[in-house]
Amino acid sequence: MLRIAVDAMGGDRAPVSELDGALRAARDLGVRIALVGPSEPIREGLRARGWRNEPIDIVHASEVIGMGDDVTRAVRRKKDSTIRVGIQLVKEGKADGFVSAGNTGAVVMTTALFLGTLPGVERPALTMVLPTVNGRGTVLLDVGANADCKPFFLEQFAVMGALYSQKILGHRHPRIGLLSIGEEESKGNELIRETHQLLKANVPHFIGNVEGKDLYTGEVDVVVSDGFTGNVVLKTSEGLIESITKMLRQEMMRRLDTQAGAILVRPAFQAFKKRLDYAEFGGAPLLGAKNTVIVCHGRSNAKAIYNAIRVAKEFHERKVNHLIETELAALPGSKPKTKAVP
Amino acid sequence: MLRIAVDAMGGDRAPVSELDGALRAARDLGVRIALVGPSEPIREGLRARGWRNEPIDIVHASEVIGMGDDVTRAVRRKKDSTIRVGIQLVKEGKADGFVSAGNTGAVVMTTALFLGTLPGVERPALTMVLPTVNGRGTVLLDVGANADCKPFFLEQFAVMGALYSQKILGHRHPRIGLLSIGEEESKGNELIRETHQLLKANVPHFIGNVEGKDLYTGEVDVVVSDGFTGNVVLKTSEGLIESITKMLRQEMMRRLDTQAGAILVRPAFQAFKKRLDYAEFGGAPLLGAKNTVIVCHGRSNAKAIYNAIRVAKEFHERKVNHLIETELAALPGSKPKTKAVP
Repeated sequence: MLRIAVDAMGGDRAPVSELDGALRAARDLGVRIALVGPSEPIREGLRARGWRNEPIDIVHASEVIGMGDDVTRAVRRKKDSTIRVGIQLVKEGKADGFVSAGNTGAVVMTTALFLGTLPGVERPALTMVLPTVNGRGTVLLDVGANADCKPFFLEQFAVMGALYSQKILGHRHPRIGLLSIGEEESKGNELIRETHQLLKANVPHFIGNVEGKDLYTGEVDVVVSDGFTGNVVLKTSEGLIESITKMLRQEMMRRLDTQAGAILVRPAFQAFKKRLDYAEFGGAPLLGAKNTVIVCHGRSNAKAIYNAIRVAKEFHERKVNHLIETELAALPGSKPKTKAVP
Repeated sequence: MLRIAVDAMGGDRAPVSELDGALRAARDLGVRIALVGPSEPIREGLRARGWRNEPIDIVHASEVIGMGDDVTRAVRRKKDSTIRVGIQLVKEGKADGFVSAGNTGAVVMTTALFLGTLPGVERPALTMVLPTVNGRGTVLLDVGANADCKPFFLEQFAVMGALYSQKILGHRHPRIGLLSIGEEESKGNELIRETHQLLKANVPHFIGNVEGKDLYTGEVDVVVSDGFTGNVVLKTSEGLIESITKMLRQEMMRRLDTQAGAILVRPAFQAFKKRLDYAEFGGAPLLGAKNTVIVCHGRSNAKAIYNAIRVAKEFHERKVNHLIETELAALPGSKPKTKAVP
């Protein structure tokens, strides 16, 4: 039975979301869960939730890396953190994947230091699925693992993102775009212009540069970006959604005739916000990491944790990592380079 | 009387928006307008709109640089383009400023090649005012003039953006933030980490790194960014607003009980979209250019053109350029560097 380690102390609502999500996953998904965190409270929490014989193990970890922690320091010093212990389980083959709603930077760094990347992968990429008007979803990567990138990192992101779109979202021939500031290949900064040439030469279904306005339409399936720009895009979107909702409410409350309407449209508003809520989408896999590592939003609820465990399972079963290895090895540019590393 | 040159053939609705906007500005703002474009159609268009003795001159230009044109080629070859002729008027002192809703890249490049920058300015920055929840507006720069930047470009952007916020938006002590992917000064890419140190040392009211989520709240008055990231932010925002509106409509139409509400909230929706419409904000000045150059959105309506002319006037009257020169000269880092240029 597949075994997924879950950081019990990761999110803002930990361990509530984690325990609820893990219990549901253990019941429904046919996976064995290893809940990582302080064992006594977790055991009590599970019992209070009616835990009987669902396949859940508790793996003790005494420390937590918080959102405010200095990541570099915390990753090195907190040797018994839930993140470190969870990653260690994966490394030792005691778990097939790790799900955490904790400090993203800490998960990325712990993975890099203690788990490593797949053979041939230069850098793992944090990968999100954005909601789109047409419902297809757009894969955006990297959204924050690598602030400074080189063109061949982005080339690998393109290959990994395409596999994710195929195997997890079910798009057979994903269209791949490069995030830039104009459609022409001459547009963009130095990194993007060089990357464009690489993708054009080596990546099938590369449709060229795309712009920020194309991210939410669903006309492109995979958008490749450096981790700085990708993260800015993500946080701008989150902030804009929040601000837009506030502004729209202000406008509706300003006028008497629309106040009544505002009450009537409330259910639509809820559905709409849910549709945009990244937490619903099953977390952000760290593509290219050795084994399966999935980072969830700090705001994750039980459903988000459950979805992330489901994605971890699908990710493993559909052999995404194996395919990543194979396809990267077939990439002309990166092959000799990565082979040269001892 | 102040004289503003207006590209009559710039926007998607040219020359309609331009003629309407210019005529209104000539009537209300106490400025003289030079409309640049094919003289006969412009003359007829003005007459059809009831032009009598409003202070408008027509300056003939036979070519137009379109949105689809290769910018580099068009700027060099189309010597009689409305953009080239308009910038030339400014250069020769026949106009005090230039307003165009045409190809942004072409305006930026024409300005760089034929007008130049203020003494001490390394690169001009395209500057937008973003709408915010609290109504203060946030100045974002650069939004696209410089895809590749160096830290001292961004330092100058901070100074120029602060002056714009003070003199045009009326914020006495604008809070200045640096767009990054985390608040800590260790966060960001190489460019941003280096820039952070410069701003911390030399720029008053620097509040540190800000994130995409802070752009639309109004908690920060000036956000400094390289032109690549700034442009991606802008286009992501535009696209997200459009997609969100569609998704919200889909949700409202999906349910019978909210359809009635949807009709009731329509006026609020209109007001809300207008509030977010960048076209309303009077265009994007190219801060640091010699003299006043303002780029408007291609979608600009007459009001947007009018507002851009108004901003050009205020920009000139409030001596923003003179202040930019003075303050940049006082900046410790950039002074020797720029002085060294012959």
